[in-house]
Amino acid sequence: MARRLGRRAFLASGAAVLGGAAALGGRELLDADPEPAAPDSPGRATVAFHGEHQAGVVTPGQAFASFVALDLVDGVDREALVRLMRVWTDDIERLTRGAPGLTDTEPELAAVPAGLTVTVGYGPGVLTAAGREDLRPGWLTPLPAFGVDRLQEAWSGGDLLLQICADDEITVAHAVRVLVKEARTFATVRWVQRGFRNSPGTVTPGTTMRNLMGQVDGTSNPIPGTEDDRLIWIGPEGPAWLHGGTGMVVRRIAMNLDTWDELDRPAREQVIGRRLDNGAPLTGTHEHEEPDLEAMTELKLPVIESFAHIRRARSDDPDHRFLRRSYNYDESPPAGELSNSGLVFVSFQADIDAQFTPIQRRLDQLDLLNQWTTPIGSAVFAVPGGCRPGEYLGQRLLEP
Amino acid sequence: MARRLGRRAFLASGAAVLGGAAALGGRELLDADPEPAAPDSPGRATVAFHGEHQAGVVTPGQAFASFVALDLVDGVDREALVRLMRVWTDDIERLTRGAPGLTDTEPELAAVPAGLTVTVGYGPGVLTAAGREDLRPGWLTPLPAFGVDRLQEAWSGGDLLLQICADDEITVAHAVRVLVKEARTFATVRWVQRGFRNSPGTVTPGTTMRNLMGQVDGTSNPIPGTEDDRLIWIGPEGPAWLHGGTGMVVRRIAMNLDTWDELDRPAREQVIGRRLDNGAPLTGTHEHEEPDLEAMTELKLPVIESFAHIRRARSDDPDHRFLRRSYNYDESPPAGELSNSGLVFVSFQADIDAQFTPIQRRLDQLDLLNQWTTPIGSAVFAVPGGCRPGEYLGQRLLEP
Ligand code: HEM
Ligand code: HEM
Repeated sequence: MARRLGRRAFLASGAAVLGGAAALGGRELLDADPEPAAPDSPGRATVAFHGEHQAGVVTPGQAFASFVALDLVDGVDREALVRLMRVWTDDIERLTRGAPGLTDTEPELAAVPAGLTVTVGYGPGVLTAAGREDLRPGWLTPLPAFGVDRLQEAWSGGDLLLQICADDEITVAHAVRVLVKEARTFATVRWVQRGFRNSPGTVTPGTTMRNLMGQVDGTSNPIPGTEDDRLIWIGPEGPAWLHGGTGMVVRRIAMNLDTWDELDRPAREQVIGRRLDNGAPLTGTHEHEEPDLEAMTELKLPVIESFAHIRRARSDDPDHRFLRRSYNYDESPPAGELSNSGLVFVSFQADIDAQFTPIQRRLDQLDLLNQWTTPIGSAVFAVPGGCRPGEYLGQRLLEP
Repeated sequence: MARRLGRRAFLASGAAVLGGAAALGGRELLDADPEPAAPDSPGRATVAFHGEHQAGVVTPGQAFASFVALDLVDGVDREALVRLMRVWTDDIERLTRGAPGLTDTEPELAAVPAGLTVTVGYGPGVLTAAGREDLRPGWLTPLPAFGVDRLQEAWSGGDLLLQICADDEITVAHAVRVLVKEARTFATVRWVQRGFRNSPGTVTPGTTMRNLMGQVDGTSNPIPGTEDDRLIWIGPEGPAWLHGGTGMVVRRIAMNLDTWDELDRPAREQVIGRRLDNGAPLTGTHEHEEPDLEAMTELKLPVIESFAHIRRARSDDPDHRFLRRSYNYDESPPAGELSNSGLVFVSFQADIDAQFTPIQRRLDQLDLLNQWTTPIGSAVFAVPGGCRPGEYLGQRLLEP
């Protein structure tokens, strides 16, 4: 009987006295109830699934992310895609509210939603399989080759993308397993990239994340809910199936921390054009102050170097902007090396060609940071809009 | 000026009004101050470094762990080991209180201690290098081969071990980098295993963790601070340099989740002998109840199967016990597979031969769980006792 009750109900029933919580060796031992702690605990937080847009784009970055790229198996056609999308939509709706997937074999691992979001993206292969190539936006194709690229197949491309984010890594691992399993007859895993930021509660919510070079990373970003929305979401001018959707770039960028270590702090700050301690531009004292790109030193040198990352990553065209939502990675170093760290660089923009590529091209040409960073993976996805109850993700593409 | 002030000092100074916290698009934007949030935030928590024992053994499991095994380079002798241990001791003492390492190049990443502990272990190679082989306890040697083992060199052995645990993954990644870097002239990385449990605050503190098979894992464990301490800590009967220390086993155990999925819930519960919902023994209703191994069904069959994991993992000898402190792992699946998940199984015991090996042997002979789990890595370390201010870790071995 007690097996169907949550912990609070159980404690209230008085049964605890019989052994549910035993005090041993000064520690209180609790029943391993899968229910997350207090009602306001980060474990109970949920992000609404239904809506005009998919969650996980303008959602403030959760602590963990897994990016799973899948390849469709031969023979998957439009009908098969409809089946997969129905199953995924149903499972995502369940998992994000803390309920087990429909055929979930570890339902207890679903009980801590921890702000889970799942964002589904389509590579060009989905449009081919669906016989909808005529509806492919021009930018849904691999990025042009850049001089800085050292791309590996193992981290590039993919027909389908699952971006799975939550404040608990067990929640993420479970959601990955459920969704990959549901897709097993349709698609195989191409790559998985795991990323992290600070844990819930360890820094004040709203604090910009730091990357593993120690920099404040994510300061200058479009602000969702303002007129910047046009930079992020695809509007009526885009293909109908992408209204409320967005374009997504995922690039794995390795950091050479060993050579980065050889720079002193002033040089490191010059590479970016911002201070390491609080992320303020070198022309100011507060993180969210506008950098003054005209400011000169007494010696008539620019305060922010000509090839500093933030100068090169801006263009005069206010449309050349996008929403960055990156994560740190840190994996086992290859033999003889000290680290294997970097950024799973993620950006969202309504039009990749018009907004992202011009900036990536500027950075490719000149950017002090290039000396310490190397893109080793690259992929592009179209993220369909959100869906209402009764609809499924991608419906407007697959059954227009 | 403001650059040297913490956020609270800074806000109190009134400077915030000038731009430190700007309200844009309805979101409050904060300066990316590396100081963790509120005084009671999990980011600020610290675990004392100095003491009779090293931290990270009886410390309740933090959310993340990295296990780093290193190999000594040729020519490292006792004096070199003394230098390395002095540097590590100093850095660990700093990092665990939220201060940067002595030559830390990313001091901001040290500002969130998040309950950081670093536990140092010695493989047999350290005693050889130090010319102290006469002081090697008999159990400090690779475990005997077991029939279930499919060990890979890449996950086995090592001269030195760093177990680095904290409630924030950036904190762990930073501490790994600092300590591996300090060791670069003495040792190279052999393997890194990263593990996780629930995030801080997502489940009630004291709740037993779950593994990726969905089981409550860690229920029946010696209780630190009781007479069970004799099972964990090496006392006067052991070598003097290990007083207050312990023996550590690290085994990487892969889970075959695909075949596990084919079992229904009652069968899964029989494999362990405990319920999946709250970890109670099949003969009871509460997690911390004693299992009744004699209980029979009406059909005169044992309620807990003869070869259930918890029956086989117990022996009649009360000395055959140890403290388990394992973590989940979940990595990119190899081509064609769905998952790459398992347990970084970690146990601490005063005498590995006398306590751990008999149980591992029993499980090797018969354990229903063996069908779904495969040990793919194995390593054994001696964890020296803790140190007082002014001492360094391992001093009683290296300068007795
Ligand atoms: C590992 C690689 C990279 C690192 C470590 C990095 C780091 C940073 C940092 C520290 C900042 C300043 C703070 C901020 O506004 O976020 C910044 C700004 C920026 N970065 Fe990067 N970045 C990387 C790659 C890229 C790439 C590949 C792009 C796009 C192609 C990019 C585009 C931008 C943009 C647009 C800004 C804001 C510029 C502004 O308006 O001030 N970054 N980056
Ligand atoms: C992936 C591999 C393994 C899994 C999934 C696993 C899982 C479990 C579970 C669910 C329990 C019951 C709850 C608890 O008391 O923690 C348990 C108990 C136990 N396991 Fe394992 N285990 C694994 C490997 C091992 C190994 C390698 C050993 C030691 C050689 C071991 C020793 C024990 C012991 C001593 C107990 C407690 C038995 C008792 O006193 O009731 N386990 N394990």
